[in-house]
Order: sequence, then structure tokens, then C-alpha cells
Amino acid sequence: MLIHNLIVILMTNNKLHAINAHDLLVISGGGFSCESWLLGVETNNVRGWKTVPRGCESFVGQYMIGKRYGEDLAMVVGEAEKYARGLKLGGDGKEVWVFDVDDTALSNLPFYAHRGFGRPAVQQSLRLYKTLLSLGIKVMFLGTDFEHDRDIISANLRKVGYITWEKLLLRIPKVKLSTISFKSSERKKLQQEGYKIVGNIGDQWSDILGTPEGDRTFKLPNPMYYVN
Amino acid sequence: MLIHNLIVILMTNNKLHAINAHDLLVISGGGFSCESWLLGVETNNVRGWKTVPRGCESFVGQYMIGKRYGEDLAMVVGEAEKYARGLKLGGDGKEVWVFDVDDTALSNLPFYAHRGFGRPAVQQSLRLYKTLLSLGIKVMFLGTDFEHDRDIISANLRKVGYITWEKLLLRIPKVKLSTISFKSSERKKLQQEGYKIVGNIGDQWSDILGTPEGDRTFKLPNPMYYVN
Repeated sequence: MLIHNLIVILMTNNKLHAINAHDLLVISGGGFSCESWLLGVETNNVRGWKTVPRGCESFVGQYMIGKRYGEDLAMVVGEAEKYARGLKLGGDGKEVWVFDVDDTALSNLPFYAHRGFGRPAVQQSLRLYKTLLSLGIKVMFLGTDFEHDRDIISANLRKVGYITWEKLLLRIPKVKLSTISFKSSERKKLQQEGYKIVGNIGDQWSDILGTPEGDRTFKLPNPMYYVN
Repeated sequence: MLIHNLIVILMTNNKLHAINAHDLLVISGGGFSCESWLLGVETNNVRGWKTVPRGCESFVGQYMIGKRYGEDLAMVVGEAEKYARGLKLGGDGKEVWVFDVDDTALSNLPFYAHRGFGRPAVQQSLRLYKTLLSLGIKVMFLGTDFEHDRDIISANLRKVGYITWEKLLLRIPKVKLSTISFKSSERKKLQQEGYKIVGNIGDQWSDILGTPEGDRTFKLPNPMYYVN
């Protein structure tokens, strides 16, 4: 049975209010709907959040495990491929595309779902990766993970199908930089080395903000966590 | 009656396929769901589109006229108010907030819905406007409309509740600039005049991209049209 108009009676300050179930959902989510929160996160309007808001946990779970996450990833990757196919390459092999690692190249979803060890590829990103290689665009991985995990990450990338790359850039623990500062400075170095960053893809805004961003950036969905 | 699993039989290349109704929706939308397209637009992953994709017209109509558009606007404005309330102002009255006009300060929705003349306020933006004035932050309107409509736009803004502003910046038809170039150069002039742009809000990415963007930008939803 689908209830279209469930009216709920609430008492606040000794006043009775009759509201419908949808409005109650909005109210219980701290004055907003979880759908609006997701859009707010993805548009970088909602920033610096620590955990999924109370009342939105199951919404986010359904989003990630259901069809929508995959469809939303496919939309972004479809646009990225269309853009990449339209590029006129210089012929000197200097065009590169920057991939974030966590939840861009590799998926943390099984980790969050407590389903084992080792991270599978984000399949849509792997598809983009293969398209780029076939077009003659080199791939750089620019992670937020640290140097001491280089071997594990390399093995994980190779195992799931990212068989080659130009560079895998990781952080040095001694140098304390925000993600934006670290990633911007690494991209700047790539430019100074003569690379042309035609694309940059990540699941966090901190992956793709900060000069130089690259000629075009792509934001993959991630309503699970926020990296400053 | 709610049909949970409507199986549709399709014939392609003389082969039969049984798929469920949801997948059919995805297929009929050109390989993507309208929900993913909306998110793609709002995250600036889908760019330069001319019209709402075939098969998504009624989805966008429902989005705009139903509850979601209002809830999504309220989410952005709520975050903007939280940010504005947390600012430490210098006391010299130099802090300003830039508002786009079309579908940010004023709503084109009745125009699109063929419901008459004169544009109402985007109510959530008007709420932000009032909050900012109460905090002592000045408001600049930076439109994409042209100078020759200044009187009409001013009257419209005042009529719906935007009673005062620091500047209303509009375009000069003779100067051919992209929206990003025009708006960036106007914001640069504001800085050179000593203003500190603490916020910048618009419904198009071209309202809020381009240096200087302002200390923080906010993207309001608009799946109706795209301005380069």
C-alpha cells in the first residue's frame, strides 16, 4: 500500500499542527530533505561536513548501493569521454589527465559496507581511463594517501585494471599541506615539467579546486564523506 | 496502484530483451536518467546544453513546480546564511555580497510557465538578502541583462522587496564579453574600489566562476537553461 497523504498531528508549544508526511521528513532532516542535502554537497554549497546528517543515513545508503550512484557516475564519465574525444591533441604526447585515487580510481564502497579487503575499481572511472589511453592521453594518479602506502596502492590499481600510468603522486607525511594546496602544487609541477593537463577528475571538490585546476574538471558523486 | 516491477519486452536486432521499467526510463533518456542529468548540470559536469534533453521535460517541470526546487533553494540559502552569520566584519562597511539577477534575485519561473508579466522574487534569495542587510553586508546586483532595461529591472527588484542596494551592475551591449569575462571584470572593479566580496550567489556557473570569484560562492539550482 502506498500512502499518498499521511497527515501527522504534532504538538509544539501547546499548539497542534497537522502536517503531511513529506513535510515531516523535511522537518526531521533538520529543516531540509536528504535529497536537497545530497545536491548541496555535490554542488559544493554544503561544505566541511563531518558525518551524514541524522535522518539521512539510510537515504545515503540507498543512494550508494542502489542504482543512482552508478547512474550519476556514468553521467559524469560520459561527459568526460565526450570532452576527451573532442580534444585536438598536439602530437607531442604531453596531454595528461589527473585522476584522484580514493573513490575516483578505486572504490571505498566495499570498505564502508564491511565487505572485505582490497578495493575494486570505480568501473566508470576505469572506463574513462581506457578511453583516455586509447586516445593517447596520459594518466596521472594524484592521491591523498601517503607515500608509505605506494606499493599497496600500485598493486591495487594494477589488480583492478589500471595497468599503466605516467605518475602516481602521493603525499609525504612530513609536509603538512591541505589537500587543495598539495594537489595544486603537484599539478603546478606537472605543468612546469611541460605536461598539459587537459582533464582532472575527483570525487572531492578539494581534488579539482585550486590553480592550476586543469583545462576541465569533473566531479564524481560522493555523499559519504567530505575532505577539506 | 504502484507497479514495482514492470517488465518490458524489447526487440533489438531481432533479439528479445526483458528489462524493467526503471531501466527503460534510463534507456529512453539517451542512456541516462533525468535525475543524473539534473545532478550533472548542477555540478557543472554537463555544460553547454541548449535544451532540456528529450524525455526529461516533464521531469524538469515537476522539479520546478513541485517541492524539490524550493527545498533545494532553501538548502543553499541556509548554508549561505550560516556562512554570513559566521563572518567577522571589519567595521568599515566594505563587505559586499554579489547577487545575480535572473533566477537568483528574480524568478523567471512564471515566464516559463506562461503565467503573466513581471517577475516575482526567488523567495529564498530575498530571505538571504534581508539576512545580509541585517548583518551589515552590502548587496550588489550583477545581472546579465543590458543597461537599457535598467529602469524595468530596478522597478521589478524594488516591487518584490529588494528595497535597496549598493550597485546594480548591467551589461553594455557594445562591449562583447562572455558572461564569465563580464562578471569577473565587474567583480575585479569592485575590489579595486576597496570592496571585499565575501559572497557571490547565482543560478549559473558563469555567475560564480572566474577570478575574483569572491570569498565564497553559492550555486542555486536551475535545470531550465544554461548560460555560457
